[in-house]
Amino acid sequence: MTLGFGLIGTGFMGKTHALAMGSVKAVMGDVPDVRLALLCDTPMAQAEARAAQFGFARATSDWRALVTDPEVDIVSITTPNGLHREMALAALAAGKHVWCEKPMALTLQDAREMAEAAERAGTVTLTGYNYIHNPAFLHAQRLIEGGRIGRPVHFRGWVDEDYQADPDLPWTWRATLADAGLGALGDLGCHLVSFAVGLMGPIESLIADTQVIHETRPLPDGSGLAAVENEDTATALLRFASGAQGSLSASRSAWGRKNRLDFEVHGTKGMIAFAQERMNELQLYVNEGPRSEQGFRTILTAPDHPPFGAFVPAPGHQLGFRDLKVLEARVLLQAIAGGAAPYPAFRDALVFEEVIHGIAQSAREERRVRFA
Amino acid sequence: MTLGFGLIGTGFMGKTHALAMGSVKAVMGDVPDVRLALLCDTPMAQAEARAAQFGFARATSDWRALVTDPEVDIVSITTPNGLHREMALAALAAGKHVWCEKPMALTLQDAREMAEAAERAGTVTLTGYNYIHNPAFLHAQRLIEGGRIGRPVHFRGWVDEDYQADPDLPWTWRATLADAGLGALGDLGCHLVSFAVGLMGPIESLIADTQVIHETRPLPDGSGLAAVENEDTATALLRFASGAQGSLSASRSAWGRKNRLDFEVHGTKGMIAFAQERMNELQLYVNEGPRSEQGFRTILTAPDHPPFGAFVPAPGHQLGFRDLKVLEARVLLQAIAGGAAPYPAFRDALVFEEVIHGIAQSAREERRVRFA
Amino acid sequence: MTLGFGLIGTGFMGKTHALAMGSVKAVMGDVPDVRLALLCDTPMAQAEARAAQFGFARATSDWRALVTDPEVDIVSITTPNGLHREMALAALAAGKHVWCEKPMALTLQDAREMAEAAERAGTVTLTGYNYIHNPAFLHAQRLIEGGRIGRPVHFRGWVDEDYQADPDLPWTWRATLADAGLGALGDLGCHLVSFAVGLMGPIESLIADTQVIHETRPLPDGSGLAAVENEDTATALLRFASGAQGSLSASRSAWGRKNRLDFEVHGTKGMIAFAQERMNELQLYVNEGPRSEQGFRTILTAPDHPPFGAFVPAPGHQLGFRDLKVLEARVLLQAIAGGAAPYPAFRDALVFEEVIHGIAQSAREERRVRFA
Amino acid sequence: MTLGFGLIGTGFMGKTHALAMGSVKAVMGDVPDVRLALLCDTPMAQAEARAAQFGFARATSDWRALVTDPEVDIVSITTPNGLHREMALAALAAGKHVWCEKPMALTLQDAREMAEAAERAGTVTLTGYNYIHNPAFLHAQRLIEGGRIGRPVHFRGWVDEDYQADPDLPWTWRATLADAGLGALGDLGCHLVSFAVGLMGPIESLIADTQVIHETRPLPDGSGLAAVENEDTATALLRFASGAQGSLSASRSAWGRKNRLDFEVHGTKGMIAFAQERMNELQLYVNEGPRSEQGFRTILTAPDHPPFGAFVPAPGHQLGFRDLKVLEARVLLQAIAGGAAPYPAFRDALVFEEVIHGIAQSAREERRVRFA
Repeated sequence: MTLGFGLIGTGFMGKTHALAMGSVKAVMGDVPDVRLALLCDTPMAQAEARAAQFGFARATSDWRALVTDPEVDIVSITTPNGLHREMALAALAAGKHVWCEKPMALTLQDAREMAEAAERAGTVTLTGYNYIHNPAFLHAQRLIEGGRIGRPVHFRGWVDEDYQADPDLPWTWRATLADAGLGALGDLGCHLVSFAVGLMGPIESLIADTQVIHETRPLPDGSGLAAVENEDTATALLRFASGAQGSLSASRSAWGRKNRLDFEVHGTKGMIAFAQERMNELQLYVNEGPRSEQGFRTILTAPDHPPFGAFVPAPGHQLGFRDLKVLEARVLLQAIAGGAAPYPAFRDALVFEEVIHGIAQSAREERRVRFA
Repeated sequence: MTLGFGLIGTGFMGKTHALAMGSVKAVMGDVPDVRLALLCDTPMAQAEARAAQFGFARATSDWRALVTDPEVDIVSITTPNGLHREMALAALAAGKHVWCEKPMALTLQDAREMAEAAERAGTVTLTGYNYIHNPAFLHAQRLIEGGRIGRPVHFRGWVDEDYQADPDLPWTWRATLADAGLGALGDLGCHLVSFAVGLMGPIESLIADTQVIHETRPLPDGSGLAAVENEDTATALLRFASGAQGSLSASRSAWGRKNRLDFEVHGTKGMIAFAQERMNELQLYVNEGPRSEQGFRTILTAPDHPPFGAFVPAPGHQLGFRDLKVLEARVLLQAIAGGAAPYPAFRDALVFEEVIHGIAQSAREERRVRFA
Repeated sequence: MTLGFGLIGTGFMGKTHALAMGSVKAVMGDVPDVRLALLCDTPMAQAEARAAQFGFARATSDWRALVTDPEVDIVSITTPNGLHREMALAALAAGKHVWCEKPMALTLQDAREMAEAAERAGTVTLTGYNYIHNPAFLHAQRLIEGGRIGRPVHFRGWVDEDYQADPDLPWTWRATLADAGLGALGDLGCHLVSFAVGLMGPIESLIADTQVIHETRPLPDGSGLAAVENEDTATALLRFASGAQGSLSASRSAWGRKNRLDFEVHGTKGMIAFAQERMNELQLYVNEGPRSEQGFRTILTAPDHPPFGAFVPAPGHQLGFRDLKVLEARVLLQAIAGGAAPYPAFRDALVFEEVIHGIAQSAREERRVRFA
Repeated sequence: MTLGFGLIGTGFMGKTHALAMGSVKAVMGDVPDVRLALLCDTPMAQAEARAAQFGFARATSDWRALVTDPEVDIVSITTPNGLHREMALAALAAGKHVWCEKPMALTLQDAREMAEAAERAGTVTLTGYNYIHNPAFLHAQRLIEGGRIGRPVHFRGWVDEDYQADPDLPWTWRATLADAGLGALGDLGCHLVSFAVGLMGPIESLIADTQVIHETRPLPDGSGLAAVENEDTATALLRFASGAQGSLSASRSAWGRKNRLDFEVHGTKGMIAFAQERMNELQLYVNEGPRSEQGFRTILTAPDHPPFGAFVPAPGHQLGFRDLKVLEARVLLQAIAGGAAPYPAFRDALVFEEVIHGIAQSAREERRVRFA
């Protein structure tokens, strides 16, 4: 089986998708062949340049042509979030498999529509929660499932960057509800929710607070100040369906944090902690053996933590960010080839988006928000 | 001036008070002389043994005799929290200066009564919030006050230990509201509140959630299970009077954490972070200089961070826990000698205790709690 | 320009070469196109399977056919070290560019012969010192060259793994001088030498000591013990041509170290330190600003550290091991396309190999070894 | 039993001795009472001020009077190293127990004379190697002795500070062989030797190199430059009597290092590592359990690591530098009271000083130096 790959968007994530699809078979072996069939960007000159660099057979500046192109089996959507819905619906309507970056959409309503369309289409969908494919994260899940830290009773998570920390940064569309939707929650918070749910199971309810730190920003043309409409930080108190509790906090204005995405899971027999900026390490504490020798151990990911070994057969030789995208691409391809259901498909990612919108709602309405 | 010191209780904190009072003049120089006058413990044999070891002139098993003893100017109260109120009121009534461990009392009402009695007595009071006397903490305060990280806009704090993490630990009085009062909040949370207020100013309101992880514990005599009445964890969303937001979280059931008491303060120009288990280090990130050289710097406390140099004139030669108590004793003695007002006196510590009780109340009543 | 790539060997390094050549154009953009032309492994079935997985056009089990194949412009040699010399000489004789893994050969004599053949051939050669292409390392070099830490006066380096730490590990050919040559020095030490020379300039002389920790190992067939002939550890005291001093130490029997390859450079104004197991971080201390704020800062590599941004345009999104190989492939391709001389070409890598053989010689002869 | 304590010198170390003797009974309990009898400093006014602050009964400006004072049983010598010999010989001749800071003397000959005098006197001597009394270090020793990391086969150690790193620092007597003796080796290196010997046993021989980084320094009066005669750095390759090998390195010009005193011991089953700047932590790696869970564990010192609990009965509440001196004082007092032989007595410390002088000699004479 050879699958034709069509890519819409060639920025940060678009390039990452292209690189992943271009190497996943070579790295992992256990997936169908992929043909880089068609790349879409605007203007056409840029599309052609990117297609040449990334190794695509053809280029287009018309995404509608791409989603219906007969040589395209998989459509990657890596455009600004406000465009996801329309593109995904069109691709699904054309019977394509869809790989869509997170968050799915600006509004929960749009995301729901996408999930419903995916169910109707019956094709394979996957959303871009790459961090949960990290062998370190998978190992944390295995440890918890295996009872290594007992019953998981408490969760804490943080996701922080500093790209909106500077008070002098000019105003952009990113500050608007209409064009950007949520702030830190949409950009960052949803990744943390994917961790929380992946480690602790469904969230039953939450109470939250959000904060706009920089209430206005200077307009780029120097004509004055414009309002920042979406949150710089968000923090939520979580109750999980399991009875466990926890919290999560997100900030896009946290100086010094470049890609913080950290968690700790407290269990009745031990604790697991992880920090994305050291993504090849896992911290484990277990209450066993002499107390004088107990301590958090720093586990370096290795071939002992599959599927690490597909990249490097030696421990301590790190994986990087684009390796996570290769693992994500593999999930998609294996699902298309008839393997396990992809996770998180649109219906799964909808749960994450319900949570981030629930956090915003709880803060806005000052009340507990419950999930079905 | 020579001040007579009377100590009630010789456990963990009692010994620490004795050691601090026995060395504060030698270490710091800038305080009155202290005479270790009278030590109280029960039974009398133990009081006498401890007095001999710690270097006290006399011993007693009657705390009422101690608080009225004419040779005693300062009374230290390091007994179980349920006894603080009665002892403090008696000592204040006798015109003594009072050094009392935290939390002040089991209930907020008792703490208020103590603060009022202190106002009436007009003597010097101090509560045992030793961590805020750490040169690293004082330096963090100076950096913030000096604008080094801009306007402080967000706070996060955690205080965790694992002394109640083991599900098989027998039930004790510590699990009861009547004898122990609050759980993790009283033991640990109040320290974290002293950090939050010390770095960010007054808390305006909060929403919180608490959790009993181990709902019952085995009775020591094997006769069955008894209920745990107070919280294992507590987490609160904070709003500060300054407009800043933040959160704090406390757990006494966090495996692997031995004395975690960590904070991070997000500012508009930088960030400061601290971890008590590495109490001689401060993390500072400032948005200045070439971006390619920016990073969190690990500052080792040193004579450049007064009053560190009184202990060791060389950087990198660490302070320990009992050094913090020496610094706390110094605050008390200097206030008695007519120096700056002690902090936190009973009236100051009452604020911290209002917060921890407010957290418990918010969780119980599921609503936002506001402070005057 | 499209260059035909031929790969000999498909193990750990072979796969890494294939992945790098398969993605370097897509990642970096600034290199010629590469066609994965021919792959060689044995037996033929394995060569065909690997060619299919890695995306090579053809497969062969005859390396001599590969090095003379008209569609092959670049030959990668990733076979066991004892085979490098013969293959490299044949490829160079056929006028091919050669990418060869380190160490170049089992003996210094063989490595010299290879370097001389490369000079005669006039084609481009590159050896597999991937760690010096890390943006963190390149930034360290730039900082030093720019005088950021003053005059570099002292170097320390360590390279440790634990693949030979277990006393019960069976004996293999790796323990023999005839088949493996040097021990820890050949496998690991040469990487560290590439750091030392890259940061401090040429080494003038050294004194060293080596150690065989496990003098015998059990034969796999259970028939007894066989001798370990090459070193488990090696440590050398270095004098650089610049007048600086330093040391380096290598071990293949250091439990817990998975890919330690660390250095620190002491300068007259500051210090730089690096640890490969955290390859996206650089530690920098500079004696500037208030002493109370000085500390080692942890710099996370980012687009501010070119060419990081070609992989990820966001800071804190890490590079991994195979990204280093992409950067190495780029050096080779740019040199072939007429860009800067590749480093380290055979003649450059010969210097590193002279040092590791010099360390072995110094230990053996118990005397200082000097380099031209 | 009450022992009279006499202190000569009230600088960094003098104050530390006073604080230790003033609190050791209160902290540990298991030692004789100590009376702070007599303090010596110059001029007399300073001696009196320090005696008042530290709690000594009397003061003198005449050290000869102190060493023969009938109320003095123990003499602490904390004066500049060049004065140790004369004072120690006088105190020993007067039948006193002697607590002397390290290094013992400027020359090995002087140190030998002191050790011989101590043997003749038959009183108790102790040298100021406080770091080996750290519960973390003692635990490392216990782990090694108990076989926890198998046979110790390799040692690495580093001791670094930056007090001579600044090229612009004025010249002082510390730069002279006559007044200061060794440089980094005497100030710092001897501590590291106490670690090496304490963990690995006797050193059989070594080869070393030393370096003067700043060959001249400006005279304080601005009249020109004067030569630096003693080493800024020293590095040695060690062979232990056990057959193990290793290395140690010392620098007084290592920017950013404030009190680095780190070691790692490689064993056949695991590794132990320690860093003095985090003196309440010990790193342990053991090859046991599933490989996927192996990692260095960070052990926080606690009451499980005696005698930690005498200071604080709770884990994670750190010890500081002056606590190490209390533990050192305890060793002295228990020996005087008839307990175990003190370590390191003069005869034991002589071994450390032989090593540092051996390192200087090896570097000077460019040859291997062997020890009896």
